[in-house]
Amino acid sequence: MMERSSSRRDVASSYDDDLPHSEISDGKRSKDAGNEMDSIERIFESKEVPPWQRQLTVRAFVVSFILGIMFTFIVMKLNLTTGIIPSLNVSAGLLGFFFVKTWTKFLNKSGMLRQPFTRQENTVIQTCVVATSGIAFSGGFGSYLFGMSEVVAKQSSENNYEENTKNPSLTWLIGFLFVVSFLGLFSVVPLRKIMIVDFKLIYPSGTATAHLINSFHTPQGAKLAKRQVRTLGKFFTFSFLWGLFQWFFTAGDGCGFSSFPSLGLEAYEHKFYFDFSATYVGVGMICPYLINVSLLVGAVISWGLMWPLINLREGDWYPKGLGSSSLHGIQGYRVFIGIAMILGDGLYNFFKVLGHTCFGLYRQVRHRKSQSQLPVSHNSSPEIPQISYDDQRRTHLFLKDQIPMWIAIIGYLVIAAVSIVVLPHIFHQLKWYHITVIYALAPTLAFCNAYGCGLTDWSLASTYGKLAIFIVGAWAGGENGGVLAGLAACGVMMNIVSTASDLMQDFKTGYMTLASPRSMFVSQVIGTAMGCVISPCVFWLFYQAFNDLGQPGSEYPAPYALIYRNMAVLGVEGFAALPRHCLALCYGFFGLAIVINGMRDAVGKEKAKFIPIPMAMAIPFYIGGYFAIDMCVGSLILFVWSKVNKAKAAAFGPAVASGLICGDGIWTLPSSILALAGVKPPICMKFLSRGDNVRVDQILKSS
Amino acid sequence: MMERSSSRRDVASSYDDDLPHSEISDGKRSKDAGNEMDSIERIFESKEVPPWQRQLTVRAFVVSFILGIMFTFIVMKLNLTTGIIPSLNVSAGLLGFFFVKTWTKFLNKSGMLRQPFTRQENTVIQTCVVATSGIAFSGGFGSYLFGMSEVVAKQSSENNYEENTKNPSLTWLIGFLFVVSFLGLFSVVPLRKIMIVDFKLIYPSGTATAHLINSFHTPQGAKLAKRQVRTLGKFFTFSFLWGLFQWFFTAGDGCGFSSFPSLGLEAYEHKFYFDFSATYVGVGMICPYLINVSLLVGAVISWGLMWPLINLREGDWYPKGLGSSSLHGIQGYRVFIGIAMILGDGLYNFFKVLGHTCFGLYRQVRHRKSQSQLPVSHNSSPEIPQISYDDQRRTHLFLKDQIPMWIAIIGYLVIAAVSIVVLPHIFHQLKWYHITVIYALAPTLAFCNAYGCGLTDWSLASTYGKLAIFIVGAWAGGENGGVLAGLAACGVMMNIVSTASDLMQDFKTGYMTLASPRSMFVSQVIGTAMGCVISPCVFWLFYQAFNDLGQPGSEYPAPYALIYRNMAVLGVEGFAALPRHCLALCYGFFGLAIVINGMRDAVGKEKAKFIPIPMAMAIPFYIGGYFAIDMCVGSLILFVWSKVNKAKAAAFGPAVASGLICGDGIWTLPSSILALAGVKPPICMKFLSRGDNVRVDQILKSS
Repeated sequence: MMERSSSRRDVASSYDDDLPHSEISDGKRSKDAGNEMDSIERIFESKEVPPWQRQLTVRAFVVSFILGIMFTFIVMKLNLTTGIIPSLNVSAGLLGFFFVKTWTKFLNKSGMLRQPFTRQENTVIQTCVVATSGIAFSGGFGSYLFGMSEVVAKQSSENNYEENTKNPSLTWLIGFLFVVSFLGLFSVVPLRKIMIVDFKLIYPSGTATAHLINSFHTPQGAKLAKRQVRTLGKFFTFSFLWGLFQWFFTAGDGCGFSSFPSLGLEAYEHKFYFDFSATYVGVGMICPYLINVSLLVGAVISWGLMWPLINLREGDWYPKGLGSSSLHGIQGYRVFIGIAMILGDGLYNFFKVLGHTCFGLYRQVRHRKSQSQLPVSHNSSPEIPQISYDDQRRTHLFLKDQIPMWIAIIGYLVIAAVSIVVLPHIFHQLKWYHITVIYALAPTLAFCNAYGCGLTDWSLASTYGKLAIFIVGAWAGGENGGVLAGLAACGVMMNIVSTASDLMQDFKTGYMTLASPRSMFVSQVIGTAMGCVISPCVFWLFYQAFNDLGQPGSEYPAPYALIYRNMAVLGVEGFAALPRHCLALCYGFFGLAIVINGMRDAVGKEKAKFIPIPMAMAIPFYIGGYFAIDMCVGSLILFVWSKVNKAKAAAFGPAVASGLICGDGIWTLPSSILALAGVKPPICMKFLSRGDNVRVDQILKSS
Repeated sequence: MMERSSSRRDVASSYDDDLPHSEISDGKRSKDAGNEMDSIERIFESKEVPPWQRQLTVRAFVVSFILGIMFTFIVMKLNLTTGIIPSLNVSAGLLGFFFVKTWTKFLNKSGMLRQPFTRQENTVIQTCVVATSGIAFSGGFGSYLFGMSEVVAKQSSENNYEENTKNPSLTWLIGFLFVVSFLGLFSVVPLRKIMIVDFKLIYPSGTATAHLINSFHTPQGAKLAKRQVRTLGKFFTFSFLWGLFQWFFTAGDGCGFSSFPSLGLEAYEHKFYFDFSATYVGVGMICPYLINVSLLVGAVISWGLMWPLINLREGDWYPKGLGSSSLHGIQGYRVFIGIAMILGDGLYNFFKVLGHTCFGLYRQVRHRKSQSQLPVSHNSSPEIPQISYDDQRRTHLFLKDQIPMWIAIIGYLVIAAVSIVVLPHIFHQLKWYHITVIYALAPTLAFCNAYGCGLTDWSLASTYGKLAIFIVGAWAGGENGGVLAGLAACGVMMNIVSTASDLMQDFKTGYMTLASPRSMFVSQVIGTAMGCVISPCVFWLFYQAFNDLGQPGSEYPAPYALIYRNMAVLGVEGFAALPRHCLALCYGFFGLAIVINGMRDAVGKEKAKFIPIPMAMAIPFYIGGYFAIDMCVGSLILFVWSKVNKAKAAAFGPAVASGLICGDGIWTLPSSILALAGVKPPICMKFLSRGDNVRVDQILKSS
């Protein structure tokens, strides 16, 4: 559940404890899991569960590979445009089902089908795809890794000397990912039984995905799935063709539909316009209304009010003529106020989840003690009579295929050792003792995160990553490349912690679909390995194809790269770099984020729907309101659709949204290939003011 | 039924004998009139038919006035853009019903309703609106009248000295229309009984409109009408807002969506592009598929093949550097080949319909003779036992309210006398003897046209008009302002002949809805009078608001103005003005039009569906293929819709189309007011080639 968690890490998360994500994206209510699922395993009783080796089929991994590439493109594009990544689990589940089902149907007709398509296999695909494309997020191509590059460093203007920059290159990217990405896998294995069987944590997203897969494999579920896939296919095609059509009109900067001043030129200059992006309309359809509204509120506050007002102080608060991209000027306010708000929100939620975790653990321990220390042996499921048939059967199968503890421990230690040796060769600013400390702390934090995520569906990986930036950055110091060390440490930390929670979600899905933990583990290993190769390659394609990658105002501004880098600079340097009054404003918004979060918790779930989420509000601070408008358009479409036909909107809304996102995302593949091949679009759709137009016409006529 | 016939005059006509127009635009089959209608009057038996004075209510004329203005705007816009005018009868019927129904409902609730809304009143509104907006077509603002202006004369370059030009001015426009427009009314009155009661002609469009109105006034019909109106309202709003949105991006020439090179810049230069016009998408939805395809075929042949090939001969066939608007250059081929094709088609159909008319008359006369000369007195309907109850009741009511013959004759003579005196004062090139000859011939031609139209739903008014151009033009001679005389004569002729057929359609509608002929006549008089004021005013608004009215390539090229003028020039001057090989090509296409028409008649109705209509093919010759693409998009939408849900597409397709046409048409009202007030759009959406874009960017940066 990498992507979905991905989005949760930075945005969607703040909402998920109010309204389970699954309810929106999957049209299913995960809370009722206990009650509604009573009969599920009875339905599947007649179907044999294949042994774990047979759950891992070649076709599953072929499909995973294809879908993995597709989703990596989408996640990469989202990383580099706004950093908001919605849940792609539904698409992964749907498309995985569709591909294999078509294939098996075909084989069945030709009489060559050796093995029927089971929900276990479906889970294996889903897990593998999510692991693959998850690397595209946790690899930090839109955040910490790309934040090391010169392009981003130049914009930050502090600490951008050679010691603190490292340009991406295919070799070290792949190496880094291989060394870092598998640790999380081994750290969660020992926690598996505790979290799922003993603590019975919910893991809303994992449960929702399991519901989806289970429903696909019942007859009427398969029918619905087919119709959903057809809808997805239609909108995929539309979105792809729309991307193609748009391409023809983007011969230069500021050309094409993505620069369409649909609300007027004045609004366009303040980054308020609808940019006709099928992706973000789709994202808006998947994200809860509150997030979209929060984004819009943030955009109005920042680009509608604050920045124009601060701009009036040019020459007073900050020197004149710095341009719009200098962090000492207006850009500084944009970036640092945004960071302050994100940190405030993160801190609040960190302590909130930590509190939940401690309280939950305390209750669990007390509960177990009071149960007169019954031995919880490996095959001892039916001891407590309240356990339902479903739970009995699931627990039985979940505990049948064990992964020995020693494999997990040895695996972790070996990879940690390799990592400690190799990483300082990649980033010589990051010393072996930094890494050792991170690896010593990591399992504890991974446990915290996996537990919190199981309770609230909320991964705090990026907060742990930011923690690592500040600690290691300050420890190393600016002159010794502290900025780079901080960013690298962030990567190491994030990979472990986020994998822990994501893979635990997968185990929950496996638990509920009777997939063997062994097959899940193997699928995760293979998926991660594929991701470690695919993601850098896709990023490399973007990096080579689009010259202005990471430039503010360009098609791919990669906003989080600059934000992460500036956090590192802040950690190393303190607040010296900020323009006037910026620090005061930062404190204000940091406090505001905490206050708003407090209010949201205080008023109760019902009323919290009307209070915006600070994390979401902060994103447009830096990049502007255009994608918020796209997303609100998506929301509006879904809202109207729900009014007209609620059931249909719930069943097909996610399919439409996924189609829009996937089609546009896949168009980036040919578009970047065209860019690499030097094929440029023939036409520029330009928007000129009336005055400019008269001048342009004269010039065009005179020649 | 002015507009519907309007379109039939030039384009839709050629198709209507294969597939009745009504079947497409009204979703009803007029052929089955006799069988299906058996019970209609039984349903309405309980409802009292109000006396004719009470069919003419104030509210009916208020609504007619409002709708008349609206439809005049729409027709005027269509006149001045491409000259293709679809049937607006459905919209007129629908909206008339909607307005009065809402009003009476409101009054009913407040207890103040004195008179219920009857279908007779609905027919009165429909007749009045059609008469009003019909003037916008037969007034020739897009053809003969505007063809007299200097703007158009300059493009023609032959015979454009003062004697042959007359610029539009509000006073003489209104005067001319008042003097000319009422003659047709009086000429049809004596024919009324013969055509409808004695000959029992079908008048497909009139019958279809009657069906529509009848169905509205049955309970379930009212429900459907309400839903149709709601659909129409939705698309009206959409289309209006789309027009408004587009406006913001049209700060200069070649700006905005109407210059969108959606198929590439190369295709755009050959006038192949989708110009996002809601109007023509709607028109395409109303027009039969064959017309849309014919337009596209014509566009491909002319702009895709012939003009590029002829262009290669520049410097050989015609002098270099004449530019694209000189009739001695490429424009000459475009205009004259188009005229040749239109004339060929017109001539073929003239003789065909004439043949039908003579044959039909011959049979009627023989039939009556064989029926032993039964006296057909005014109240003698039920003599022949085969007559159905519906026909009995209708004939009874139709013949109850007579319009005395002497009123018709005196009216005709008085108006003709006034006309003969006044017209030479308006056009001093047109002598009193020209007019007298026209008026002497007119009633016969009017009879021919009304009879042919009743048989085939096909008005040949524009062909009679062209006849007048050539005859009077040649008679007057070029030095004596023959061009102007010809154009004026065309107007006089067209008004009489077209009114004859159109009003006979209305009488048929009235016959079938039990509306009194007297109330119909009064409604037509009032409608015509309103039209004589509204149309010139609306044209004047366009003329004042858009400076480039009538310029080729502009938003309002008024293509038929130039075509009509050049016909007059041709009539006066002969073929001297044509560039090289143009005459040969004209002969070729003249012959081709006749051959294609012959083939269409020879292969039978089924196969004729696959042979394009020459009249429709000729239109894009001059103005290019963009509107053909719009119309094909409309066709495509309707086609797909029909495949998905045939019943719904049939019921709501016309409403969607009408909404699109009306919304965009009404937007021209505020847009022309904005233009008059000097408010210019703020943004130019421009399309530049990549090379131009680089230059433009440099210039914009340097300043």
